[in-house]
Amino acid sequence: MIRDVAIVGIGQTPVGELWDISLRHLGHDAVVAAMQDAGIEQADALYVGNMLSGALAGQEHLATLIADFAGLKGIEAAKIEAACASGAAAFRTGMMAVASGMANTVVVAGVEKMTDTLPADTTAGLALAADQEYEVAEGATFLALNAILMKRYMHEYGVPHSAFAPFPVNAHKNAIGNPNAMFAMAISKERYAQAPVVAPPINVMDSSPICDGAAAVVLVPVDRAKEYSGSKRIVRVAASASATDTLAVHDRRDPLFLEASYLSSRRAYAQAALAPMDIDLFELHDAFSIMSVLSLEACGFAPRGRGIELGASGAITLDGDLPITTLGGLKARGHPVGATGVYQIVELVQQLRGDAGPSQLNNADIGMSQNIGGSGATILTHILVGEN
Amino acid sequence: MIRDVAIVGIGQTPVGELWDISLRHLGHDAVVAAMQDAGIEQADALYVGNMLSGALAGQEHLATLIADFAGLKGIEAAKIEAACASGAAAFRTGMMAVASGMANTVVVAGVEKMTDTLPADTTAGLALAADQEYEVAEGATFLALNAILMKRYMHEYGVPHSAFAPFPVNAHKNAIGNPNAMFAMAISKERYAQAPVVAPPINVMDSSPICDGAAAVVLVPVDRAKEYSGSKRIVRVAASASATDTLAVHDRRDPLFLEASYLSSRRAYAQAALAPMDIDLFELHDAFSIMSVLSLEACGFAPRGRGIELGASGAITLDGDLPITTLGGLKARGHPVGATGVYQIVELVQQLRGDAGPSQLNNADIGMSQNIGGSGATILTHILVGEN
Repeated sequence: MIRDVAIVGIGQTPVGELWDISLRHLGHDAVVAAMQDAGIEQADALYVGNMLSGALAGQEHLATLIADFAGLKGIEAAKIEAACASGAAAFRTGMMAVASGMANTVVVAGVEKMTDTLPADTTAGLALAADQEYEVAEGATFLALNAILMKRYMHEYGVPHSAFAPFPVNAHKNAIGNPNAMFAMAISKERYAQAPVVAPPINVMDSSPICDGAAAVVLVPVDRAKEYSGSKRIVRVAASASATDTLAVHDRRDPLFLEASYLSSRRAYAQAALAPMDIDLFELHDAFSIMSVLSLEACGFAPRGRGIELGASGAITLDGDLPITTLGGLKARGHPVGATGVYQIVELVQQLRGDAGPSQLNNADIGMSQNIGGSGATILTHILVGEN
Repeated sequence: MIRDVAIVGIGQTPVGELWDISLRHLGHDAVVAAMQDAGIEQADALYVGNMLSGALAGQEHLATLIADFAGLKGIEAAKIEAACASGAAAFRTGMMAVASGMANTVVVAGVEKMTDTLPADTTAGLALAADQEYEVAEGATFLALNAILMKRYMHEYGVPHSAFAPFPVNAHKNAIGNPNAMFAMAISKERYAQAPVVAPPINVMDSSPICDGAAAVVLVPVDRAKEYSGSKRIVRVAASASATDTLAVHDRRDPLFLEASYLSSRRAYAQAALAPMDIDLFELHDAFSIMSVLSLEACGFAPRGRGIELGASGAITLDGDLPITTLGGLKARGHPVGATGVYQIVELVQQLRGDAGPSQLNNADIGMSQNIGGSGATILTHILVGEN
């Protein structure tokens, strides 16, 4: 990277079934909040991460629409789509715009509206991220694909379903103090064990919810960050990396190893000159419980087959060595798909600034996020560092 | 821009109703052709411009799918959407990746498959680029919106419909030597005058066709271009600019002035330190005849109300002062919407390299392209310069 980039503004809407807020209003609200946080009234560009606006709202050209609706007249705008990794992909585009000197002040938003449509449409919409001809045509959904992965993991490593409980339990507990979380409530191991099964072995508590939400950040060159940050801590983007794998799960050499997670995390560690042990918190992509475990292993936090143990040991809790989903994650904050990657970045900034409320960590200087599209086909890793 | 960028590879598929070629195959073919032209077998990233894959092919996550299908294992991939300006927006993203130093070798593709679906679906798909709540819900289509603009122009400036004839006549004539053009055949002024009216005053010959196609380019830092270009002329990207306007036409102060065209062209001229008179050829966005005229005026090639005269004077022909649509433009090469912006770039490179066949210009050193999304809501301008 030629020019270092900092985040000087963050904004987010609550996540939930927001029946009274439309797609453009969601985008507007997050963009305006982030710009107010940065103290700016205009920007050079707006990049919007979104997956489903065409399928569910009959609206493409979304970035220009939100720029228009937010009063950002004349600025550059584009939508970035990489399935459920659209948010992080839009963030990376904003990074490139500032790092290249082609823009000085950039707003990145992630926006998704998944309710206010027929449920069948939402499920069909999500399946747009799978291989239409070789997966969807055979009846595969993401739920089914993740169920196969979870079942295989349990079989390969002799792991009982109950071993996954600590992941949603931790996510729900961490969401309690987050006013933007969809499910700000604790769940017990017993409730996890008794939750209705959706596609065996996956149950409701293994699955992130269908919901609406939008989050946004403001990016500027790091050497100009002080002009915008006020008394807030400057957060520098120390690494931005993206990698892909085959779209279809059955094309992979080993479905239980997230190769794109491995590649993007290693690229990120190299850029930041850091190792897994340096990471203070990790906002990972817990769309399903199995994905948390596979991410932890591919990113080097645990050997293969032993990521599951980070749950049992308590390492993933706010008091542990590697806190994850510190404000609820996809499971409890919610997973408005194209927005999720930006929510993860916003929550890292909250932690690095010391603004994470009851979920605030004591030592939060280096945060990592990982956003996954499809069943591991597109994976982006970002590392943020709080400047002192 | 911190690091200058060069185009060292181009590829394209023929444009047409390609019933036997699927979306992923189109993307594959253009990407592989561009990489072969550049003599490379791997890249750091693939950015895909596409508007309608979700709506018409039931496939999002398209960039990762094409990377997978083209054998580019592990690379970064993302899809960029900005309605019919998706191609140029993807190109600009590729520029930012290389200019920022975040990538060294980037492939940008524009891909669209508009046939092999129900015609009603394609029209509904295109309407995704308009304002769903304030235009589409009222029955507006792009054809209708452009018909209103054309009618208003004719009324304001006392221009007869026949005055638009030189634009499609020129486009069709220029397509004759282009093996990738959909309509490589001349049309006469008489045929234009007698063409079936689609939405008065727009007739079939004012309208670009629904079609399939894909185009791609390879981008590298300009100081490394010689490693890839062989004996081919190096083409440098001298300017890349994007601007937006209100999505809905009725929200504009003056619907006959393309403000985003004005803004993006002025930003491009400033970046390149050039003026309209320096441009040797201009690949403009002739989705409808009226758009050609409005673009020429907003870009400063003619005063308001007089862009139409550049047709009558012959200025826009291959022998004129400002050749446009030199290989057929959207009207005769075809307009596979999300691919068009990349086709324009590829054709500029053909001209600057001296590889434009029967349409080759004598002096082609500085070429400009303009790609329009919606009814002028998102407009990107690029200026390419052939290095000596």
